[in-house]
Amino acid sequence: MVTRILLMAAALAATPVIAGEAGRTHIVGERQANAAPLPFSDGVMVGDTLYVAGHLGLDPATGQAAKDTEVEARLVMDSVKHTIEQAGLKMDDLVSVTVYCTDLGLYASFNAIYRTYFHDQYPARAFIGAATLLRGAHYEVLGVAVRPSKAKD
Amino acid sequence: MVTRILLMAAALAATPVIAGEAGRTHIVGERQANAAPLPFSDGVMVGDTLYVAGHLGLDPATGQAAKDTEVEARLVMDSVKHTIEQAGLKMDDLVSVTVYCTDLGLYASFNAIYRTYFHDQYPARAFIGAATLLRGAHYEVLGVAVRPSKAKD
Amino acid sequence: MVTRILLMAAALAATPVIAGEAGRTHIVGERQANAAPLPFSDGVMVGDTLYVAGHLGLDPATGQAAKDTEVEARLVMDSVKHTIEQAGLKMDDLVSVTVYCTDLGLYASFNAIYRTYFHDQYPARAFIGAATLLRGAHYEVLGVAVRPSKAKD
Repeated sequence: MVTRILLMAAALAATPVIAGEAGRTHIVGERQANAAPLPFSDGVMVGDTLYVAGHLGLDPATGQAAKDTEVEARLVMDSVKHTIEQAGLKMDDLVSVTVYCTDLGLYASFNAIYRTYFHDQYPARAFIGAATLLRGAHYEVLGVAVRPSKAKD
Repeated sequence: MVTRILLMAAALAATPVIAGEAGRTHIVGERQANAAPLPFSDGVMVGDTLYVAGHLGLDPATGQAAKDTEVEARLVMDSVKHTIEQAGLKMDDLVSVTVYCTDLGLYASFNAIYRTYFHDQYPARAFIGAATLLRGAHYEVLGVAVRPSKAKD
Repeated sequence: MVTRILLMAAALAATPVIAGEAGRTHIVGERQANAAPLPFSDGVMVGDTLYVAGHLGLDPATGQAAKDTEVEARLVMDSVKHTIEQAGLKMDDLVSVTVYCTDLGLYASFNAIYRTYFHDQYPARAFIGAATLLRGAHYEVLGVAVRPSKAKD
């Protein structure tokens, strides 16, 4: 487990950040750096707002969702956090989150892990029962984060 | 029915509004004022934009979704409206709404109630068939509202 | 097939754009121009941000989702593109997209079509397995686009 997370952290460190046209910055993951990249950015920053793509909690060894749902919950939140940090923001800058979950019986378990990623106040959030998710995932998490300097005006 | 809505209105009146760090204002409901609050804000205002969390149409007597789906539709929209008003905005300031619904056969019934919350024009909207929702809900409604002063620039 | 798309394009050209109060511009489709319009705008522009409603890939001859899923994928993306262009923006201005899909087995097929609507970089995206969608749809696509002039500050 710890090893997997460290491996993931090492892989994440290589994520390239690409400043696109028109002032948009695209955060693109390792998969996007592959020969056959998938057609999405992990996040797009425009002005002071970061749109965070739907993230999965993938086991880097298999490319599928981690089999243990607690591990998966940590991996998906770590992955969201990584994208946010690549954009120069923090988890507490998230203002809105949507969690898609294939089993609402995991609600309390997910919440216990989710809480540890924030201080004091939480983003607005929706928690939706999805029929299915890609790669065998139990969770897909997306959100919007806003740079505090904007918030201060 | 009327009694339930009045009870809800009384409970809603107590919702605290917390100005967070970095200019963000968090709207936190009664549940958040409890000993074991859930990890989300009902809404987060940043700059002129209010991110409205996924709301449910809960019967205050049971904490579960109202059994009558028309009552539930009114309760969920009342709850969204309350959060928006706590932030100093109005329903017509909603620019985007997503409705998750566990039974698309309720589409016409929901629309008839939904219409009564707006004047003239409507927000952009998605209406998605969810597999399941928390607390036995048929509806979960989230959105984004923008303060008109921002819209005027 | 080609005929259908041309018919759709002809129908789309008639979509009215209504500048609402408070600086909001509502993009309302043909259905909204009917005697019994549905309660949503296809898009709402506020400041430099366009909130794009959930779009379906409807066969204009039936009002239901196209039976061929590749045709449907093109129709839904054409419809999203039309709304974006009515607001004076381009597909590359999309910063965030959510795709709801009733059959995740269509992922690769959808991606192949989706790619053709963008140049170079892609929006952040979530791809969610929905239980059901309106009008027999396999896809519902929503998003947020931002005018580049805003992005340049």
